[in-house]
Amino acid sequence: MKQVLRAAVVLAFILVFCQTARADDPLLSWNDGPAKTAIIDFVEKVTADGTADFVPVEERIATFDNDGTLWAEKPLYFQLFFALDRVKALAPEHPEWQTQEPFASLLKGDTKKALEGGQKAALEIVMATHTGMTTAEFENIVTMWIATAKHPETHRLYTQMVYQPMLELLDYLRDNGFKTFIVSGGGIEFMRPWTDNVYGIPPEQVVGSSIKTRFEMRPDGPVLIRLPDMNFVDDKTGKPVGINSHIGRRPIAAFGNSDGDLQMLQWTMAGPGARFALLVHHTDAEREFAYDKGAENALKEAAANGWTVVDMKDDWNAVYPPDGQ
Amino acid sequence: MKQVLRAAVVLAFILVFCQTARADDPLLSWNDGPAKTAIIDFVEKVTADGTADFVPVEERIATFDNDGTLWAEKPLYFQLFFALDRVKALAPEHPEWQTQEPFASLLKGDTKKALEGGQKAALEIVMATHTGMTTAEFENIVTMWIATAKHPETHRLYTQMVYQPMLELLDYLRDNGFKTFIVSGGGIEFMRPWTDNVYGIPPEQVVGSSIKTRFEMRPDGPVLIRLPDMNFVDDKTGKPVGINSHIGRRPIAAFGNSDGDLQMLQWTMAGPGARFALLVHHTDAEREFAYDKGAENALKEAAANGWTVVDMKDDWNAVYPPDGQ
Repeated sequence: MKQVLRAAVVLAFILVFCQTARADDPLLSWNDGPAKTAIIDFVEKVTADGTADFVPVEERIATFDNDGTLWAEKPLYFQLFFALDRVKALAPEHPEWQTQEPFASLLKGDTKKALEGGQKAALEIVMATHTGMTTAEFENIVTMWIATAKHPETHRLYTQMVYQPMLELLDYLRDNGFKTFIVSGGGIEFMRPWTDNVYGIPPEQVVGSSIKTRFEMRPDGPVLIRLPDMNFVDDKTGKPVGINSHIGRRPIAAFGNSDGDLQMLQWTMAGPGARFALLVHHTDAEREFAYDKGAENALKEAAANGWTVVDMKDDWNAVYPPDGQ
Repeated sequence: MKQVLRAAVVLAFILVFCQTARADDPLLSWNDGPAKTAIIDFVEKVTADGTADFVPVEERIATFDNDGTLWAEKPLYFQLFFALDRVKALAPEHPEWQTQEPFASLLKGDTKKALEGGQKAALEIVMATHTGMTTAEFENIVTMWIATAKHPETHRLYTQMVYQPMLELLDYLRDNGFKTFIVSGGGIEFMRPWTDNVYGIPPEQVVGSSIKTRFEMRPDGPVLIRLPDMNFVDDKTGKPVGINSHIGRRPIAAFGNSDGDLQMLQWTMAGPGARFALLVHHTDAEREFAYDKGAENALKEAAANGWTVVDMKDDWNAVYPPDGQ
């Protein structure tokens, strides 16, 4: 009996010790500094029961932009690399693309020229590669691509270009009762096949841009067909709209990196009680990319309002997950 | 020491006994019969680890229609009663409504005549009463109405016209790891203010019809304005579209009562593995309402495919929650 008791006490100590060691630094890849301190202060504040700042679990909603916030976005949005690969794969079925822009330039390997047509050209490429199949077929195409395609510069899988510190942040928030959502300008059905594996964010917690779909009863059962018709653009002023439509509650914390996230951050910060807004600032040309372009307004507003700005170079001791993860 | 031990043993027995008593009948308001048996068989099958029918927790998605499935829908959809009450409340600001249909008839108390204009008249009433304010203002209006408005025939609060057996079913599914969603033709923002309290379904698990909203930065902060412009009709073929858009996974169980739910049930049943489809059949003129109208196709398909059909009169020993709940 005594021995059993002693074993139990030892076990209890081990459990407590392990939990303490882990709780000591939930954000291992974050250097000590104002950003890390601000995150931890906020989480401790809203989870301290009995205080004025306490937020009930069901209201702990955190929304994350994807491109440039959870994974890299240079030299092009990764979804655009996907679209370019799809143009190549589909070219044999589209002989007209050999002479028709933006496809002709793409097929000659001149991505820059192909994208000179701006948003119109990009939309044309997306529609040609993202629609005309069932949702199940598209899911399979994305799943196969994301498992094998590699970034042209780092030669990493795209899913190995997610930010290790942000993975730790997602875990830390969830360990503290937060429900984490993606709210991205990227395609909702481009993200859903892999966000659960990579970020721990299930399909029903992904908000993004979308094309329309149509229900069709086929002889072998019902399908949803992806139509070449935009349904919703989840960017800029679209982000609060998407949040309201999908989540139906205002987040208490929001994370972004660009002007496309500004309205999401404004919307989040305008609610009552404790709130948190964070911008990832790309300052690390050596380990990732360094650029302010497209984030000028967000950075200005962050400075004016005291939002947390992550200096990737100073604040993160790791950028991508260790090789082979 | 002995006394403490004895107390602990007694307490353990009480706990086990209570849990057993509860587990014995999670569906107290359901009479023994094929519907109740089918529900329990399905749930036990998909939760039995190590069997071919086992479904991991994260894929246990169940979708419920609202009107006629979770609460009553006669003599009119309850949201239409809300709209009619809003017309009366807003009439002083709209002198033109005194002569303009469908408002003029409504204000004279002739609902039937007002709705003779069919869908166009209903849409006009909905747009006039559901748009032109911020999302926060609309939420307040709904919250106040639902707390006080009473059904013209039963004189119950509308939230006391939810079906007690369905509340038990929602709890039973959630106790077995299911995530429960509403997928309703009703307005998404008409439901969200009260579904968590009434059904235990949080805003982010409500899918419904919607109007467009626009983000606007006002001097006192950002708002979302509700626009008189339909965004999405979550009915019939729209239900699988709404499920795909909001949830991004196919449900393994779906619950409806009318032809508006048919495609949701078809979509649910077309997936692989164990599946469940249930139709609430309104057969109880005494305790609720008896009608097949609008459910003819769904009832036909249920019979053809062996879906579970609930005969309200025979299968439910209670319809509404006890008074005063």
